[in-house]
Amino acid sequence: MEQNAQLLREMAAKAGAETWEDRKKNQTPQCKFGEDGICCRICSMGPCRITPKASKGICGADAHAIAGRNYVRFIAGGTAAHSDHGREIAHVLHVSSRDGNYIIKDEQKLLRLAKEWGVATEDRDIYEVAHEVAEIGLMEYGKPFGTLRYLERATEERQKLWEELDIAPRAIDREIATVMHMTHMGCTADAEALVMQGMRTGLSDGWGGSMMGTEFSDILFGTPTPIETEADLGVLEKDMVNIIIHGHDPAMSEMIVAASNQSDIIDYAKSKGARGVNIAGLCCTANEITMRHGVKMAGNFLQQEGAILTGAVELIVVDVQCIFPSLGPLTKCFHTKFVTTSDITRIPGSEFIKFDPITALDQARDIVKMAIDNYQNRGSNICIPQTKQKAVVGYSCEAIIKRLDTVTNSHVDELGTYKPLVECLESGVLRGAVGIVGCNNPKVRTDYSHIEIIKELIANDIIVVTTGCSAQAAAKAGLMQKEAKELCGAGLKRVCELADIPPVLHMGSCVDISRILMLVTGISKAWNVDIAKLPIVGCAPEWMSEKAVSIANYVVASGIDTYLGIEPQVKGSAQMMELITEGTRKMVGAGFIINTDPHKLVKSMIEGIEAKRTALGI
Amino acid sequence: MEQNAQLLREMAAKAGAETWEDRKKNQTPQCKFGEDGICCRICSMGPCRITPKASKGICGADAHAIAGRNYVRFIAGGTAAHSDHGREIAHVLHVSSRDGNYIIKDEQKLLRLAKEWGVATEDRDIYEVAHEVAEIGLMEYGKPFGTLRYLERATEERQKLWEELDIAPRAIDREIATVMHMTHMGCTADAEALVMQGMRTGLSDGWGGSMMGTEFSDILFGTPTPIETEADLGVLEKDMVNIIIHGHDPAMSEMIVAASNQSDIIDYAKSKGARGVNIAGLCCTANEITMRHGVKMAGNFLQQEGAILTGAVELIVVDVQCIFPSLGPLTKCFHTKFVTTSDITRIPGSEFIKFDPITALDQARDIVKMAIDNYQNRGSNICIPQTKQKAVVGYSCEAIIKRLDTVTNSHVDELGTYKPLVECLESGVLRGAVGIVGCNNPKVRTDYSHIEIIKELIANDIIVVTTGCSAQAAAKAGLMQKEAKELCGAGLKRVCELADIPPVLHMGSCVDISRILMLVTGISKAWNVDIAKLPIVGCAPEWMSEKAVSIANYVVASGIDTYLGIEPQVKGSAQMMELITEGTRKMVGAGFIINTDPHKLVKSMIEGIEAKRTALGI
Repeated sequence: MEQNAQLLREMAAKAGAETWEDRKKNQTPQCKFGEDGICCRICSMGPCRITPKASKGICGADAHAIAGRNYVRFIAGGTAAHSDHGREIAHVLHVSSRDGNYIIKDEQKLLRLAKEWGVATEDRDIYEVAHEVAEIGLMEYGKPFGTLRYLERATEERQKLWEELDIAPRAIDREIATVMHMTHMGCTADAEALVMQGMRTGLSDGWGGSMMGTEFSDILFGTPTPIETEADLGVLEKDMVNIIIHGHDPAMSEMIVAASNQSDIIDYAKSKGARGVNIAGLCCTANEITMRHGVKMAGNFLQQEGAILTGAVELIVVDVQCIFPSLGPLTKCFHTKFVTTSDITRIPGSEFIKFDPITALDQARDIVKMAIDNYQNRGSNICIPQTKQKAVVGYSCEAIIKRLDTVTNSHVDELGTYKPLVECLESGVLRGAVGIVGCNNPKVRTDYSHIEIIKELIANDIIVVTTGCSAQAAAKAGLMQKEAKELCGAGLKRVCELADIPPVLHMGSCVDISRILMLVTGISKAWNVDIAKLPIVGCAPEWMSEKAVSIANYVVASGIDTYLGIEPQVKGSAQMMELITEGTRKMVGAGFIINTDPHKLVKSMIEGIEAKRTALGI
Repeated sequence: MEQNAQLLREMAAKAGAETWEDRKKNQTPQCKFGEDGICCRICSMGPCRITPKASKGICGADAHAIAGRNYVRFIAGGTAAHSDHGREIAHVLHVSSRDGNYIIKDEQKLLRLAKEWGVATEDRDIYEVAHEVAEIGLMEYGKPFGTLRYLERATEERQKLWEELDIAPRAIDREIATVMHMTHMGCTADAEALVMQGMRTGLSDGWGGSMMGTEFSDILFGTPTPIETEADLGVLEKDMVNIIIHGHDPAMSEMIVAASNQSDIIDYAKSKGARGVNIAGLCCTANEITMRHGVKMAGNFLQQEGAILTGAVELIVVDVQCIFPSLGPLTKCFHTKFVTTSDITRIPGSEFIKFDPITALDQARDIVKMAIDNYQNRGSNICIPQTKQKAVVGYSCEAIIKRLDTVTNSHVDELGTYKPLVECLESGVLRGAVGIVGCNNPKVRTDYSHIEIIKELIANDIIVVTTGCSAQAAAKAGLMQKEAKELCGAGLKRVCELADIPPVLHMGSCVDISRILMLVTGISKAWNVDIAKLPIVGCAPEWMSEKAVSIANYVVASGIDTYLGIEPQVKGSAQMMELITEGTRKMVGAGFIINTDPHKLVKSMIEGIEAKRTALGI
């Protein structure tokens, strides 16, 4: 991997292009006040910062208030991003039609959700049902009264706790607005109140916007089932038109994939001297598309520039989030076209084609043709690292249950439950389960923490589920192949063999952490053990974005200890550090465990799991 | 005034208390990166900052993207604060009842709004109508489709422009969420797109949340009419129980005032040796309550500590926004009780009594009694500056029109219009009108800019309307007395005499800048001249909060040039500076004019007004 990075750095140098490595160097050292969370820029009396000389900002806000406000605004940013993604998909569902670009692919899932939400289904056109479900979903963002519908999916114990603590989220957008109001100059200065609102806002993401993103995507694009794919920059093809899809929202990319499979498009590519059109994904758009179509994954967050540096990408089309603005100038160093498609993500140096769900397929065809037309402009100096790994992806909850059914004795056992998994956990064949999620962060060696932690866990008979950039790190390291069972302890190896699964399960994109919530909730219900007591934890080894902090908050508020490999920016406040590590533990039974050394982090994780087993008497 | 400040500083020194002046000193010099808007803390790869060595953050965001994102998040914070205030009042309206704490005081205004929103009124109980109107109002925060209802009140020209530019706001909370999403790591890096969304979000405040705050408050508490009051710390009474009400939302304070007027409460105060209960306001709560009850104003934003330092305040009860967290420790240096009442504003060192609209009057009685009980604990060392001024406040649009009716020839002219005002403007008797609004800011001498600018304007026959801390600055300077006509040019003086008004009209609190929008819209319609062409501008000489930036954006987007005496924190980006000063002018016909010297600022304002007159050929 380091060798590939070296090759691409040479490409960058030749092209006179700047990369994140260069910019990271220029940004070092980073501002300590910002890193510690004690710089306040919330009003124009400031900026203020906490120093030995100044223990308070001009208004009197202390380190705890300042760090707390910054922290909870981080959550608001993350919740807004995830949930707005969910909203966009809801709007697509709302215009779905039998003869339109977007059809209903998983009718059963739609009908189940309609039933859950009290939408009449009998004798109704499925699209009428879909539109009503979409409208109800959209109301979850702004209804004036009540709390979120999906909360009722949680265990009774969690629901009760959230009510008691007054952190059951109301409308999603309202929680975001509440954060912004609470953190306004002259509003809340009490760190605990901020942390509580942070959890409520996070919950509106996990049990709200993200969960809608997942469910509506499944309804429209199909619920994922295991499928083979490949990952890493080696999936780019030397003699094909390479198109990178990048971002998070699958709506446009679904159309790009559909367009690229149309025979006239393939013929057009051939007419231009290419062997065909090769779609490869980056970031969560990759996860969304790979698990439904097996489309290959070029890589994760910190590889976005690397993909362009190969010189072999005709076009990169992006939707929202985690798009480096550097792609504007970088693509200009090559022949690569850069297309943005969302009002939410306008980037200088790109061509803007505003996504329209009614004409999306035509737009996608135009974009693919633009890439094909650009094939002839590819330079002679291309460098595709010859690294890629096979992977099996697409383990939705439904797919996991299907695998579990195969190890059930259908004569005596109930089908369609998590019970076989509970039995493995209870018996100790599996010691526990960990969800590894999150980004890359230049503060640590790329992918290293993800991979080291996963390897250590599976060697200790702890099964791993992943999403997002972590999933891609695992795939690139070959950990999502069934052959990876050889890296496992005896218990997990046996489980992999019996259930015919890899030890690291790809559960999708970052919004699909809602799938992990449902998985853990399912286990809790099947086992009749509160989530906070299960030998199951979460981990974000290389997190970077506000979304990650939102996720971490809903995971903790759902009762799942969360291990972080990057420090949240609150170190300047002892009270905030205490609140997010121990304070929430007293409230919701879980908290953060933070260690920037991945080996120490995984060690504490295993100890934490074993301690939970001991407490359960297993 | 400086003398008073000196007296209070001595009180602080004796009590060992810290004030904003001390903290300001400790915070000097302030961080240049923050001041220039080129410090990015939006993801944990950072913090990043633009330096001569580093022209981009790690993701590739340049100065324009960083300053633009910070700027538009400022607007989101302000919109959230104002609009959430409006929402709270809507919730109070929703539980109003004939025999409850909150009744309908302005039925006519409710009925007009019901008609505007298509709510049936015939044969219906007024409270049924109120509840339906409240629910429709609450839906404005979260409706999934369409744009805001109040936009239809704007001139046709503005409505058309907003549609064309795609900045007509959708649901209020959605605009806030959109800002948070657009500014998330890896989303919008295009400064112009950020500025456009900033205007859309601001519009959702001015023509949404703030306007609802104003209208629903008028419906519940009465539409203001001119009333006499007094302003400055001298309104505190040596031999009375002094209660300070502070914040923005009038719901709780209305009850405090009601409770303080109950005879058993007054008797109780007398039984404790006080002459009675004296309620005095700070910040916008003061504005709300003074214009409906003539309750005296203790002062504006930077006087909140001064009020406590008098040693004569038994209790300070606050709702939301602009509350110094320093009041926690400061009140502990005196006998003063500090009560917070809103989940939105939790402050260490306060007693929290969560506002409940159903039992608010009982809560208010308890709070007032707590203050009375505390009277005996007052120390001997008290220092009430003997400074105060008389003022006439409460010029709602309705009240202004009523004054205009008195100068109308009822035989030939239509009553109930702004036409007399238009005639004054057109003829040149008045050269123009300016709305002076906004906060105090320690970056400049307190109140000085407000007062200097206002004096210069009225001397030049430019009538002034004010809200917020600016209104209090004017009141304290005696500029809201009718006698202030002597400071005016001949034209304005004549208008003051004929209409029997002071030259500076108190239009209310900061959310009441929505009244100014309706006033200017009314003038535009009556004159049939686009707002951007009218000799009317806005000015925020000492602005400080995110709310001010939200206001400035909706004022500009409404076509009104806005003069700022404090620099927006975008100086590090030439593109952002160009966009907010000239760029928006090309889009919406107005922009910012920035000068930190109040004399230069007012000079450019007068020139700007005269240039508009010339362009109109008047």
